[in-house]
Amino acid sequence: MLTKIEHVALAVADMDGALKFYSDVWGLEASRREQVEGDHVEEAMLPLGDSFLQLVSPTSEESTVARFLERRGEGLHHIAYEVEDIEASLDRLKSEGATLIDERPRRGGGGHMVAFVHPKGNRGVLVELVQHREHA
Amino acid sequence: MLTKIEHVALAVADMDGALKFYSDVWGLEASRREQVEGDHVEEAMLPLGDSFLQLVSPTSEESTVARFLERRGEGLHHIAYEVEDIEASLDRLKSEGATLIDERPRRGGGGHMVAFVHPKGNRGVLVELVQHREHA
Repeated sequence: MLTKIEHVALAVADMDGALKFYSDVWGLEASRREQVEGDHVEEAMLPLGDSFLQLVSPTSEESTVARFLERRGEGLHHIAYEVEDIEASLDRLKSEGATLIDERPRRGGGGHMVAFVHPKGNRGVLVELVQHREHA
Repeated sequence: MLTKIEHVALAVADMDGALKFYSDVWGLEASRREQVEGDHVEEAMLPLGDSFLQLVSPTSEESTVARFLERRGEGLHHIAYEVEDIEASLDRLKSEGATLIDERPRRGGGGHMVAFVHPKGNRGVLVELVQHREHA
């Protein structure tokens, strides 16, 4: 069902400061930076091997990332798995009793189809499924 | 400095239940399962693309993973980056002001050389550096 780890998302309070930190300390640079309006976040994608680190910061207080930062501070936010068929994956997860945040795929960062799975019922891990555009 | 995401570690309370869950729900199977005595944990490595998911559970109350589970419950625990030269990486991180949990590399799971970097001073993210045995 899963092809690879597409990205690991790290919640950060200030995107500019975080990008400088990841460049200076870890030698990583963003290949893409984008506002995702529906989620009230800005995302930056830092290529690392066959995956990305994603820095994600809130652009409004409505963002769930803003609430995450208030509660826990900066840190590991979610893991994204690449799938070949996101509809089939959601059907399987539902039949296995997972709690879906997105019942159907929607357009996310980079124009890919995405859907989130709730940490409740997934051993505390917030998961994003990603189906790349070219497979859609 | 970094080659790839070597693994993403998920803290779990019971290893047998978590392995069954990841097999049933996510279709992932462990390729290695190991007690790491020094850290008072059991680890299972589930291959996914060019990386692993690592399930990690405490084998004693002394384990930092036991304290993590008490405080936060199951969930994302740390991210591990593969490096080619772990000594040089630690030197660079130190010069950039990172807080090292392990000042020098030590033997970790799979016989690889590992060192942990404290979340404080790393934007809330606990990081493990891994240098694979064959590069040592």
